[in-house]
Amino acid sequence: MTGPRLTPLVEALSPTVPFVGPETIERRLGQVLDPRLGANESLFGMSPHVLAAIGQAAMTSGLYADPEGWELRQALARRHGVGLDHIVLGGGIDELLGLFVRAYGAPGAPVVMSTGGYPTFTYHVHGYGCRLVTAPYRDFANDLAALAEAARREDAAIVYLSNPDNPTGSWVSTEAQMALLAALPPQTLLLLDEAYADFAPAGSIPQEGIADPRLVRLRTFSKAQGLAGLRVGYAYGDPATIRPLDRLRNHFGMSRVSLAAALASIEDQAHVDAIVAEVARGRREYEALAAEFGLKALPSATNFVAIDMGDAERARRILTKLIEQEAVFIRMPGTPPLDRCIRVTIGRPVDRQAFAAAFTRVMKANS
Amino acid sequence: MTGPRLTPLVEALSPTVPFVGPETIERRLGQVLDPRLGANESLFGMSPHVLAAIGQAAMTSGLYADPEGWELRQALARRHGVGLDHIVLGGGIDELLGLFVRAYGAPGAPVVMSTGGYPTFTYHVHGYGCRLVTAPYRDFANDLAALAEAARREDAAIVYLSNPDNPTGSWVSTEAQMALLAALPPQTLLLLDEAYADFAPAGSIPQEGIADPRLVRLRTFSKAQGLAGLRVGYAYGDPATIRPLDRLRNHFGMSRVSLAAALASIEDQAHVDAIVAEVARGRREYEALAAEFGLKALPSATNFVAIDMGDAERARRILTKLIEQEAVFIRMPGTPPLDRCIRVTIGRPVDRQAFAAAFTRVMKANS
Repeated sequence: MTGPRLTPLVEALSPTVPFVGPETIERRLGQVLDPRLGANESLFGMSPHVLAAIGQAAMTSGLYADPEGWELRQALARRHGVGLDHIVLGGGIDELLGLFVRAYGAPGAPVVMSTGGYPTFTYHVHGYGCRLVTAPYRDFANDLAALAEAARREDAAIVYLSNPDNPTGSWVSTEAQMALLAALPPQTLLLLDEAYADFAPAGSIPQEGIADPRLVRLRTFSKAQGLAGLRVGYAYGDPATIRPLDRLRNHFGMSRVSLAAALASIEDQAHVDAIVAEVARGRREYEALAAEFGLKALPSATNFVAIDMGDAERARRILTKLIEQEAVFIRMPGTPPLDRCIRVTIGRPVDRQAFAAAFTRVMKANS
Repeated sequence: MTGPRLTPLVEALSPTVPFVGPETIERRLGQVLDPRLGANESLFGMSPHVLAAIGQAAMTSGLYADPEGWELRQALARRHGVGLDHIVLGGGIDELLGLFVRAYGAPGAPVVMSTGGYPTFTYHVHGYGCRLVTAPYRDFANDLAALAEAARREDAAIVYLSNPDNPTGSWVSTEAQMALLAALPPQTLLLLDEAYADFAPAGSIPQEGIADPRLVRLRTFSKAQGLAGLRVGYAYGDPATIRPLDRLRNHFGMSRVSLAAALASIEDQAHVDAIVAEVARGRREYEALAAEFGLKALPSATNFVAIDMGDAERARRILTKLIEQEAVFIRMPGTPPLDRCIRVTIGRPVDRQAFAAAFTRVMKANS
């Protein structure tokens, strides 16, 4: 008895994946990691309005959710000034990225992104058998001219751009993004991952209503809205590009509680605004902390800061000490030259103070 | 500007899908459907234990869930007497079926199921470009000899069996299932969908611990546990067959609230037992109701009953009247000969009484 046959594609995929949660580290170390600053989650607590909505939705969660997600899509359509048909919901941007790669990335098709960019996107590119083509970051920012050049050279099926960017925290101007879109081949899909849009400075998020079937924008409730544990994201763009996902998605896949929480969070913008303001304060604190040790915090338009440790060996060493000796959860990019950095989420003042104390101890003991 | 290219596979998929929720009908009719007896959901209300767990988990839902789902898998491993590595979690059985088809069903590979079986499985078979091979039901039950014969003839990549069955409610013996497994080719995967296992009579659910890498069993918290709106299911089987899904699944895809609710529901078996007992009472009521009109309710081992209306035209007519005139949500299978039946979920006494009254009115006016 030999057992079922994996498809050749899946057989060839790596059995190890880059998704290690803090809980896995905690089980290994036998210790709770605190503060938890490795996954760019929100530590700011739930909006009471959202908590109330969750309690309400829980009561009826014996029932499947509306497969059209009509109420939430209606609210999002109003927010973005688009029609319902422009929007598709998913279990976070991660799930939607997989669906777009599946829909538009045939096996072997070239897909372009920055070298060392969002690992989950890379995972999907490999998972659907596309051919990954990368262009290096330039000064820790996405190099849009290089991405455009690669896309034209390859006649790429898809280009992925995270703006503001993870893992660097950098951002690019609206003009640069529009120039990238203009430079793409006529059949190239631009997946613009705007997970961190709420934290971005003016002039870095394109206007609404760009009429181009090649552009899809992805948003999440996991960052500024603080609902990472509930898994709600959406994509919006031209219906001609968006609607084919209805041929692939799990129509009854969304949680009733999650949809209700997302809807409630839209109605509590004050909670989001308070978090965005607190995150801005935290960025300045991390910049000052880095400077104390002669290090540079990369400019960030997100809820995290990447601190340039100068070289990869040092970054890895400091990260390991922070996790194993200080029980602080942070992460670092795995790909050169980004692996000179450690990446630290901006938490509450108490989390930032705990990080600063731990970082100071580790730096003093390892300088 | 022509826009992005769908893959040839996705381009060829039907733009219409069989997933119409009751909310879509409600928006069309401008009326709430009540009782809601079309999706085999639980109308019995949440376990207070589960509600408390949801409230607790909501507080920390700014954080991503453990990508290993360790706590829930631990509890499930104990329940089934298997190791953690035997279990994979997903957003309901629906999502897991998609992952198994993706992992084991290469484009063009033959996949066997009963004619008119679970539409979501068919959706995945088409969605991954497999070749659907069907064997007809026999007396409204899965014909395991015919499924085995088709699997051997085609050297099938996958055989799908729902037991107890949706949409008929029928079940087959453990012996018949073991004979099917024994008859399958050495590399055929048997996906055994046991969504309704809690409602099944003795002798119809195989024992635990069958050591065969070809067998994967799928379970959900959506039916007897009453958590359909939260999307938690799991598959268990030989790690050699289960673990490759880690190359494909969305590791951070599960909701923290949903995982906590599922765990709490395991700890409140009394709530499940009460629902199972109430469902048994409701089955007898539906059987008696059908008999009043000289109709046969198919024997059911699930939380729904299929009533044989004698012919498809009549079934469709009665279903339409029930929905449009009586605002009762039920469904019917779309494929002959199953389309002689309407399918009615077993709700609370109040839901069953409302259905009985509406059914009686419609039958009297259309006899």
